[in-house]
Amino acid sequence: MTNWPGRFGGHLTRPKRRILLAAMLATLVMFSATAGLVAQPTDPLPSWNQGQAKQSILSFVERVTQQGGPDFVPVADRIAVFDNDGTLWSEQPVYFQFMFALDRVKELASAHPALAGQEPYKSVLSGDPAALAALGEKGLLQIMELTHTGLPVSDFHTLVRDWLKTARHPRFDRPYTDLVFQPMLELLAHLRATGFKTYIVSGGGVEFMRPWTEAVYGIPPEQVVGSSGKSEFVLDGDSPVLRKLPEVEFVDDGPGKPVGINRFIGRRPVFAAGNSDGDLQMLQWTTLNTGPRFGLIVHHTDATREWAYDRASKIGRLDKALDEAPQRGWTVVDMKDDWKVIYPSDR
Amino acid sequence: MTNWPGRFGGHLTRPKRRILLAAMLATLVMFSATAGLVAQPTDPLPSWNQGQAKQSILSFVERVTQQGGPDFVPVADRIAVFDNDGTLWSEQPVYFQFMFALDRVKELASAHPALAGQEPYKSVLSGDPAALAALGEKGLLQIMELTHTGLPVSDFHTLVRDWLKTARHPRFDRPYTDLVFQPMLELLAHLRATGFKTYIVSGGGVEFMRPWTEAVYGIPPEQVVGSSGKSEFVLDGDSPVLRKLPEVEFVDDGPGKPVGINRFIGRRPVFAAGNSDGDLQMLQWTTLNTGPRFGLIVHHTDATREWAYDRASKIGRLDKALDEAPQRGWTVVDMKDDWKVIYPSDR
Repeated sequence: MTNWPGRFGGHLTRPKRRILLAAMLATLVMFSATAGLVAQPTDPLPSWNQGQAKQSILSFVERVTQQGGPDFVPVADRIAVFDNDGTLWSEQPVYFQFMFALDRVKELASAHPALAGQEPYKSVLSGDPAALAALGEKGLLQIMELTHTGLPVSDFHTLVRDWLKTARHPRFDRPYTDLVFQPMLELLAHLRATGFKTYIVSGGGVEFMRPWTEAVYGIPPEQVVGSSGKSEFVLDGDSPVLRKLPEVEFVDDGPGKPVGINRFIGRRPVFAAGNSDGDLQMLQWTTLNTGPRFGLIVHHTDATREWAYDRASKIGRLDKALDEAPQRGWTVVDMKDDWKVIYPSDR
Repeated sequence: MTNWPGRFGGHLTRPKRRILLAAMLATLVMFSATAGLVAQPTDPLPSWNQGQAKQSILSFVERVTQQGGPDFVPVADRIAVFDNDGTLWSEQPVYFQFMFALDRVKELASAHPALAGQEPYKSVLSGDPAALAALGEKGLLQIMELTHTGLPVSDFHTLVRDWLKTARHPRFDRPYTDLVFQPMLELLAHLRATGFKTYIVSGGGVEFMRPWTEAVYGIPPEQVVGSSGKSEFVLDGDSPVLRKLPEVEFVDDGPGKPVGINRFIGRRPVFAAGNSDGDLQMLQWTTLNTGPRFGLIVHHTDATREWAYDRASKIGRLDKALDEAPQRGWTVVDMKDDWKVIYPSDR
């Protein structure tokens, strides 16, 4: 066997030989790096710490996408459903949609001063947390009616878009759409990259979410399932309008979630993610089925970077679903331990 | 310029020259044919006769898909909505879903003989058209309740699938799913091939359509919008079930169609096709908007190959929408003149 420096550099002077060797070494290093990249693909979930949660997600996706494997799921059936509040973005101190409603009351009261003296708007304008907490269901419905109905759907979308541009979260002083969970964005992207269709199935209002879910989550309006009010079609001259009416049509929460999934999607999902008892039936509907299924619960355990709450919380109460998780084989994500970063800006 | 037979065949004998010339001629013919194929792509609507309807469809699709053109529509907004009964398949002598209901009454009556003596089932079992016509809204609702509710959604799907395998249309003695319109199948395929997402938006029941629309039209369950009854989630031990309840939830007809489009799709379509006044508001909602829009009405004019009906028909009455078509620029398809074949088996 020919000695390779002899073959390639034998007739060169020593300095030239050194240069050639250095160049060959550099090429070898570059080649190894490239080979390394091919052998170890980029981590699709870089914001997740190594651990059981991350491993079980990656292993599930691998199994259901392995053509010819025992757990293979055809692309058409790769339906993944995600709760929104507390699962894809934060939900404290109250659901962000309610923050929108409170801001909208203030705006309407400054345009129509008579509102300021009437309850429940008076309590809202006082800014007193105790007064707000005492509103009760009737007061909440009145606030939702005032701020969410009596206008065309398209005008409501504009209001939501404008609010998201200017409103700031009270604790973090950042736009609400900055408070989405970076690890969940990566999970959504990984599922889509492996042939899943990702849906939101939220107790929140469908018209509140649709104006921004595509830009923020990559989820288009037709893949957003949510609560809704009735609406009516009116032809005003040659201008067709859909007006939002002050009547609840559908509450997409708890046992309403499987109903909403069936109505809008018409297939049973293979992957479901939630964070509260409002997601219990969606998790059951998804996972108590034949074939490979994945249930995920985001457990809010990080009071420093986000919030820590579960069984006793008014917003996002997680109790029964947490009890059921072990027997159902649902993966409970511990935000503090499992997530390297919470928000995109933390990276 | 060199004379070409001289260049290529000058040294050959006369018979050999003839063979060579013939071969070259054949090559030329083949080449021209190939060039012709490239210049004139395969007709995407072969079952449509040349005429204004076909031309306006092809021209619309070309305009909205031409990148950089003035009428370009991004892929995400290429939403096309189709009524089902009378637009994608026949609807005479009555909606096929009602034929399913009548057959189901007969089946249930043979399993539960007590039903046979009760109205409105007695009238159904008599097979007397006059008795059927006299059922009224209350009788119809009772029939729908008996045949469409009180069972799990998945069991209902099985009933529909089994019925489609065995039932035969009274006039054509063929499965109902054979009575889909070949020209509309081609239109659906052409729209999808050019980046459109095709939806059904039908007054028919969503659970009646979803079991077969993917196989028959290439439209998956999540792209079927229709009328629905309420349903409830029940956890029976470890078996989650969605039960169909005897309560109407949503009527996806007339002014309900834009409401359904907004609820399920959340975008305004750019293409809508219907065949009756039940599609009027969907056509308005789609076309009375800025940018390029297409409205299509299937006019049933062919009593020989299908049926001829419009203003006076009980099923599929087409009156107001036909009057509005010229001023709105909607394309009225004359089945007799515009369609070479009606059903796939006619080809």
